[in-house]
Amino acid sequence: MRVVVPFAAGRPKTRLADVLDAEGRASFARVMLRDVLDAVRAADRRPEVLATAPVDVGAPVTVDERPLTGAVNAVLAETDGPVAVVMADLALATGRVLRELFETDGDVVVAPGRGGGTNALVVRHDEFRVDYHGASYLDHLAVAREVGASVAEFDSHRLSTDVDEPTDLPEVLLHGEGDSPGWLRSAGFRLAVEDGRVEVTRPE
Amino acid sequence: MRVVVPFAAGRPKTRLADVLDAEGRASFARVMLRDVLDAVRAADRRPEVLATAPVDVGAPVTVDERPLTGAVNAVLAETDGPVAVVMADLALATGRVLRELFETDGDVVVAPGRGGGTNALVVRHDEFRVDYHGASYLDHLAVAREVGASVAEFDSHRLSTDVDEPTDLPEVLLHGEGDSPGWLRSAGFRLAVEDGRVEVTRPE
Repeated sequence: MRVVVPFAAGRPKTRLADVLDAEGRASFARVMLRDVLDAVRAADRRPEVLATAPVDVGAPVTVDERPLTGAVNAVLAETDGPVAVVMADLALATGRVLRELFETDGDVVVAPGRGGGTNALVVRHDEFRVDYHGASYLDHLAVAREVGASVAEFDSHRLSTDVDEPTDLPEVLLHGEGDSPGWLRSAGFRLAVEDGRVEVTRPE
Repeated sequence: MRVVVPFAAGRPKTRLADVLDAEGRASFARVMLRDVLDAVRAADRRPEVLATAPVDVGAPVTVDERPLTGAVNAVLAETDGPVAVVMADLALATGRVLRELFETDGDVVVAPGRGGGTNALVVRHDEFRVDYHGASYLDHLAVAREVGASVAEFDSHRLSTDVDEPTDLPEVLLHGEGDSPGWLRSAGFRLAVEDGRVEVTRPE
């Protein structure tokens, strides 16, 4: 099984602009990518990065400047055999959960992201193609139906948590097992309980 | 195994006040509770409601006016044998995922909620007690360590999604399998894609 990790090397994580400057966002995105690659390796697979520009992260990188959907579909079209697509901002991913994902039966195995996205995907059907625009989770179920592919939902908090916004950062501090939580702590982020909810704080 | 579903019958779901009035919030909370009870039954268990006031939902109800932590600990203290505690606002719960939770080995099995809470719990250790205040997930891990109980994390998007805030509603429409998504649609809520993210809209 090929395991492809798409990575937008340009201006990543703009929705974290309120809590991290551009350099911090680029650095944090890189740390999360490395954590995802480590988790793939811990699941005994060799990750490949599919990036919009060259990036040095200790794994083979294919540069494809197209938007996510076109770049991933090019991989699906050129590959005989199963392909997994794992997003680069799944800072809670572990070898354990990815191994379980890769071993789940189904022509198409979909791990939904919070908010309707598709955070991880295993494709074992020649005709299935992705469309990451909008509520891609529902779209991918529909595409699978159209091409006659069996679908399995992969239900995981760790894989449903793509780290896009400040409200996602507590999850990294609470559950991350790679370098991302340490990076956040070094940058001054701390868990804080406000009105019974956990948030992050950062000294000025 | 006893399966207890705590329910705050008073003024539920105040964080949904921006999108639902008090009557709507009470009604929606009731529908979610019923969905959770149905999911417990679909996992071949008999749910008991632990409520702060009498409530008619077709399941045995124990009224305990104390805050959540005290009421749940009273159940743990009086029960010989395993107890599961499943929150009443897990509108994405299914019989499938609850069965898997109940069958997971461990003196204490914890399904974390987004934001550091504890959304579902199986307790098979006499000395373990809950503390739902603040980041209860981390507290429960610490309590388990203190009393020498083995802990298993139960990783599930469905169980991590307690429905508290408007940003949780898309998850109900996307993944709910009980009556809660239909209730939301009847109340006018719809999925909408904004800036690549899924949100809910409601006509005025």
